[in-house]
Amino acid sequence: MGLNIVQKIIKTHLVEGEMVAGKPIAIKIDQTLTQDATGTMAYLHFESMGLPKVQTELSVSYVDHNTIQAGGPENANDHLFLQTVAAKYGVYFSKAGNGICHQIHLERFAIPGKTLLGSDSHTPTAGGIGSLAIGAGGMDIALAMAGEPFYLNMPKVVRVNLYGKLRPFVSAKDVILELLRRLSVKGGVGKVFEYGGEGVKYLTVPERATITNMGAELGATSSIFPSDEQTYIFMKAQGREAQWRRLEADPDAEYDEVIDIDLSELEPLIACPHMPDEVKKVKELEGMKVHQVAIGSCTNSSYRDLMMVAKMFEQAKKTVHPMVSAAISPGSKQVLRMIDKEGMYDVLLRAGFRFLECACGPCIGMGFSPPSGGVSVRTFNRNFLGRSGTKDAQVYLASPETAAAIAMTGEMKDPRDLGLEEIKIFLPEKFEIDDSMIFAPAADPDEVEVWKGPTINYIGYKEPLGDKLEGEVLLKVGDNITTDHIIPGGAKILPLRSNIPAISEYVYSVVDENFAKRAKEKGGGFIVGGENYGQGSSREHAAIGPMYLGIKAVIAKSYARIHRANLINFGILPLIFVNPEDYDKIDQGDILEIDTSNFAPGEDNIITVINRTKGISIPTKHGLNERQVKIIKAGGVLKYVKDKFEGKIQ
Amino acid sequence: MGLNIVQKIIKTHLVEGEMVAGKPIAIKIDQTLTQDATGTMAYLHFESMGLPKVQTELSVSYVDHNTIQAGGPENANDHLFLQTVAAKYGVYFSKAGNGICHQIHLERFAIPGKTLLGSDSHTPTAGGIGSLAIGAGGMDIALAMAGEPFYLNMPKVVRVNLYGKLRPFVSAKDVILELLRRLSVKGGVGKVFEYGGEGVKYLTVPERATITNMGAELGATSSIFPSDEQTYIFMKAQGREAQWRRLEADPDAEYDEVIDIDLSELEPLIACPHMPDEVKKVKELEGMKVHQVAIGSCTNSSYRDLMMVAKMFEQAKKTVHPMVSAAISPGSKQVLRMIDKEGMYDVLLRAGFRFLECACGPCIGMGFSPPSGGVSVRTFNRNFLGRSGTKDAQVYLASPETAAAIAMTGEMKDPRDLGLEEIKIFLPEKFEIDDSMIFAPAADPDEVEVWKGPTINYIGYKEPLGDKLEGEVLLKVGDNITTDHIIPGGAKILPLRSNIPAISEYVYSVVDENFAKRAKEKGGGFIVGGENYGQGSSREHAAIGPMYLGIKAVIAKSYARIHRANLINFGILPLIFVNPEDYDKIDQGDILEIDTSNFAPGEDNIITVINRTKGISIPTKHGLNERQVKIIKAGGVLKYVKDKFEGKIQ
Repeated sequence: MGLNIVQKIIKTHLVEGEMVAGKPIAIKIDQTLTQDATGTMAYLHFESMGLPKVQTELSVSYVDHNTIQAGGPENANDHLFLQTVAAKYGVYFSKAGNGICHQIHLERFAIPGKTLLGSDSHTPTAGGIGSLAIGAGGMDIALAMAGEPFYLNMPKVVRVNLYGKLRPFVSAKDVILELLRRLSVKGGVGKVFEYGGEGVKYLTVPERATITNMGAELGATSSIFPSDEQTYIFMKAQGREAQWRRLEADPDAEYDEVIDIDLSELEPLIACPHMPDEVKKVKELEGMKVHQVAIGSCTNSSYRDLMMVAKMFEQAKKTVHPMVSAAISPGSKQVLRMIDKEGMYDVLLRAGFRFLECACGPCIGMGFSPPSGGVSVRTFNRNFLGRSGTKDAQVYLASPETAAAIAMTGEMKDPRDLGLEEIKIFLPEKFEIDDSMIFAPAADPDEVEVWKGPTINYIGYKEPLGDKLEGEVLLKVGDNITTDHIIPGGAKILPLRSNIPAISEYVYSVVDENFAKRAKEKGGGFIVGGENYGQGSSREHAAIGPMYLGIKAVIAKSYARIHRANLINFGILPLIFVNPEDYDKIDQGDILEIDTSNFAPGEDNIITVINRTKGISIPTKHGLNERQVKIIKAGGVLKYVKDKFEGKIQ
Repeated sequence: MGLNIVQKIIKTHLVEGEMVAGKPIAIKIDQTLTQDATGTMAYLHFESMGLPKVQTELSVSYVDHNTIQAGGPENANDHLFLQTVAAKYGVYFSKAGNGICHQIHLERFAIPGKTLLGSDSHTPTAGGIGSLAIGAGGMDIALAMAGEPFYLNMPKVVRVNLYGKLRPFVSAKDVILELLRRLSVKGGVGKVFEYGGEGVKYLTVPERATITNMGAELGATSSIFPSDEQTYIFMKAQGREAQWRRLEADPDAEYDEVIDIDLSELEPLIACPHMPDEVKKVKELEGMKVHQVAIGSCTNSSYRDLMMVAKMFEQAKKTVHPMVSAAISPGSKQVLRMIDKEGMYDVLLRAGFRFLECACGPCIGMGFSPPSGGVSVRTFNRNFLGRSGTKDAQVYLASPETAAAIAMTGEMKDPRDLGLEEIKIFLPEKFEIDDSMIFAPAADPDEVEVWKGPTINYIGYKEPLGDKLEGEVLLKVGDNITTDHIIPGGAKILPLRSNIPAISEYVYSVVDENFAKRAKEKGGGFIVGGENYGQGSSREHAAIGPMYLGIKAVIAKSYARIHRANLINFGILPLIFVNPEDYDKIDQGDILEIDTSNFAPGEDNIITVINRTKGISIPTKHGLNERQVKIIKAGGVLKYVKDKFEGKIQ
C-alpha cells in the first residue's frame, strides 16, 4: 500500500508507536521555532535542563509579537534574553523588525520532508513548502531542543483535492475560508489536511502557506502541500534550491477522508464576527460601512499579497477612503524590500496606507485597536471577540483583494465589482536575500553571557516528591474551573510571563485575592476542585504559578486533559476522588496528610488522603504511567530530563 | 528705533497692551495647530462655544501622538471625533500616519510673519520658517479658534548671533545643545530667542527648525529665525513660494540680551540623563555600551536628518551593531517618500533599522521602551526620568550624526572618528507634494455629523454663580499640592482625557481614594488648601475634574499661577485666606456658607466665609479682575464666551 505525504514524513521520523490514526506516537523533531511571547519560557526551560547546546538540526528564535515595547522594560528585556540565550545554546536569532516567524521560516529555513515544532499555533504555515509543521507549548519545544521526541496521537489524514483554477480577485484566503465554512472551527481536530489534485500546481508557495497557516483555525494538527515544481521555483528564488526535494503522495495512497474543492467555483468570502467559520460571501454584506482595514499577519503579508493590493490601487488610481484607517504590516523585511524595489511601497504610501512594523501587530491586538463598535476588515486568521483590543468591535476576515476593495470604497465590496482588469502577480526570479538581521549562534558559547533583566525570574521545577505530603487546603473550588481562573490573561499580566514570582501573585486572584499571600504564609498546601478542573487555554503558567506557591497536590473529581499534563510536568500530583461525593468531606482550611511512600504507576493504585481536621480517610487515584510517576517523583519534567541527561535515572 | 523680528510680528498683531518686556499684552492669532493628545479637549471646548466655524486664517488638527492604539477603542474614537469635528468647523485634518504636526506644519502651512498658537510645547518649530509660534493649553487654542486674542506677557528678546560654519558631522542639534549647556532648562523663561548673524545663512529651514524646536527645552516662549533666501528655497521646494516674504530685524534693532555662538568651534554634544541641559561632549563618554538608538521626533526627523544617517551607513558599509536595537520614526510621509525616492529607505532597511510609523512614537514613550537600566541614545528633545517608559533607563540626546555613529559601533562615538568623508545633504529642488492624507473642511458643514464614541464625554462649564454657595469641606490638604495630586498622569488615566466623568473618578485619588465618591454623594462642596496650591503641570483637567464633581470654591493660602487661571476658566472661585492662620479654623467635614451676592472685581474685596459647623466667620479675598469675575459668574470661560457671542454679555 502506498503512503500519503504525512505518512511518509512520520514514517521516517517515528520513534515510538504505530501509524494508526488515534494511537499515541512519538516523532523525531528536525527543526524548532519560537516567537518571543512563548519563547522566553521555552528557553528558560531548556536552559534549566543543563545541556550545552540544542540537539535539533536547526532551531530559530524569532521576535515578532511584543515589538511595540510600550510602558516598561519587560519586552526589551525579553528580547535581550532571547538574543543572548540563542547565541549561547546554538539557536539562530531573528531580531525585532525582521518580520513574522512563519513568513521568515518559509523564506529562509523550512525544508520539504522535515518536521518542524513551533511554539505558536500557526506553525503549520511551513506546510506550504512541504514541511510537517506542528504548533505546541513552550515545554514541548524545550524538550524537542533537548533531543526528546514529540508525543502526539497519530492524526487522521484528510485529502483535499483542488480542481480547476481560481478566478481573478479570488485567492488562497478564499480557499481556506471555504473549508472553514464547510467544516467549522472544530472540523480539523486530530487531523492533518493534505492538499493535492490538479489545482495545486497553480498555487505558489506563499499562496499555499496562506492555506496551511489558517488550517489552524480548523483545529487541525497541521496542513501540508506536496513539494513540486512550484516549491522548487520558490526555493530557487530564495537561493535554497539545494534544499529542495520532491515529496508527493504515492498514487495508491489512502486517506481517512477526502474533500473536493473546485477552485473555479469559489468567490470572495469573508468571515464575520466573531469566529473564523462564520463565513459569508462578500456580496452578502455589500454596502456596509467599514472603519478600518488591516493587511498583514502570518496569513496574508507576503510579497504576492502586498503586490496585489498595490497593483489594485495603482490600476484603480484610488486612495484609501477618507473615513477608513488602513494599515499594512509587512510579513518580513524581505517582503518590504521587494515591494520597495518594485516601486509598490511608494504606491501604497501614496494611496494613504499606514505602514506598521514587520511584525504580528494588530493580529494579536498589538495596536490598531478599532473605534467603539467599529467595523474592521482584516486579512488575518482570527476574529475572536475582543482580540482586536476593542471589546465591541466587529472584526471580519478576508483576502487582500477584498480588503483592498473595501479600503478604497469605504464599504464592504466584492473586488470583482471594481471593474479592474485581471492582475497577475509572479514571484520574482530572485528574492532580495538579506539575512543581516538573523544572527548565527556564537562560535564560542563560553564567551556569551546570557542577559537576564530583573523582570526575568525563572523557577522550572520543585523539590523531589517525599514520602509524605502535609499541609492545609488553601482553596476549594467548584466544577469547570478554567485556566483563566487559575492565572488570568490580559495586558497587565502578559508582560510578566517570564517572571514566575511576579506572575504567581495573580494565581487565583479572580477567585480569591488573598490566595497567593495565604499560600506563601502557609508554606504551600493543597487545592480541592470539582469536575473538569483546568479546562480552557493550555497556558502552562496555570501549573507553574501554583508550583511556585508550593501547591503539592490537587484533588479533584476530574481534570481537563492539557492542564493535567501541565500539572504533571511541573511536579504537582493530580489526584482524583475515587468516590466523587468525598468532595464534600474536605473543606478549605482542613489539614491533610498524604502517604506517597508507595506511589507507583497504575490505573487503579490508591493513594489515601487523611483529613486530620475531620479525622477521616479518603481514597484517591492518579492513573499515572511510569514516565509520569518518574516526573512527579523528580519534581517536574525538567528535573526528570536533567537527571536523565546526567545519568541519574533512565 | 528699529525693530527686531519679534517686535515686528507682535506689533502687527497687537490687540491689547504695550510692547514692554514683562507687561501683559494680547495678540491676534493667525493660525492654530493641535495634536490628538491635547486636541480632543480643544475642539470639545470650541464646539461648546456655539460658533459655526473657526475664526482663524488657518487651523489644522493633526494626529501624531496616540497612533499605537493598543488595548482599547479610546485612541481610534478620538481620531474619528477629531476628523469629523474638523470637517464641521472649518479645520484641516491630517490623518494618523501622515506624520508629526510640527514637521508637516513646517512643510505645508507655516508662513513667515504669521502668528501660530499650538496645543503642544514644541510649536516653536515653525520659528524655523520665521513664524512666531507659541505653545499653549487646549483652552487657549479653543479661544484663539473662536477669534479671541492670546494673552501673554511681552517677552524679552534675546539675539543669538551665529558666526562661522558648522564643521563636518556637527549639526543644528549641537547648536541648541550648546545653548542648553550655557543657559540651562530655565534660561529661556519669558524670552524669545531670535537668531541672526552670518552663520544663519548656511542653515537650511529644517536645520533652523531643529533649533527653534528644542528652544522649548530652554523654557523659552518661542524661538525664531529670519525669513531669507534659505526660507525661499525651502518654500519653493514645497510649492509655496507665493507665501514667502522677507522678514529680518532692522539694522538698528535692539535686544534685551545678546548671545554669540561660533559655529566653527562646536563639536558633537550629547545631553546626559535625565535633563536636556546635562550636556557633555560625545568624546567624554566614548566607549560606553549602548543598547538602543532612536532617530526621529519633531526635533530630528527631517529629510536632511534621515538622508544624513543613510549616507553615513552607506559610506561606512556598515549595519546596525548586533547588540543595538535601532529605530527610525520619519517626521512625515513626505520625508519617508523623499528618502525612498533617493534610494535611502532601502539603505536604512538593509542597515537593519526598524521603521516605526511617521509619528511622535518613542519620544513620548509610545513604544520602544529600553531594557532595564538600558542606555538609549535618541535624537529627541527630552530625556526626563521615566519618559521612555522604563524607569531606570539612561536616555541621552544627540544629533542624527552622533546617533548613526553609535548605532553602527554599539558604543558612544564621536561621528568624526569614523573616518568618513564629509557628507553634504542638499534639499531637493522639489519635495514630493502629496496632501492626500490632509482633508480640507467640509464644503457643507451641515452634512457632517460629529462622531463621538462612548469614550468621549464632555462637560465644559458649570451652572452660573448664585448669590450663595453652601456645602461641606470635602477635603483639606496641606502646602504645595501639585496638579499631579489633583489628577494623576500615567498610561491608565491618559486615555480618559476626552472623558470627563471617567477621568473625574481619579480626582485626588492618590490623596484620598474616596474623594470622588464623597463629592458626588454630597452634591459637591469645597476644598481647603495651603500655600502654593496647584503647582506643577499646567493640565486643565485638574480644574475640570473638580468642576465636574461640584467643587464650588477652593480656599487656600496661595495659588500657583496657572492652576488659579484654570480654576477661573472652569468657574471655580479661588479664594485666599486674608489671615493665613484662619486655615486652622476650618476642618474637613465642616459646613460652609459663602455670600457671593456682592461679588465684584477688585484686589481687596472681601468675601466672608461662614463656618456654620464652628459658628465663626472667616474673611477671604479673590483679587479677580473684571473679565475674571464675569467668567466666574457665567460658570466658566466657555459659558462666558458663548454668552458674549450670543450677545448676552459684553
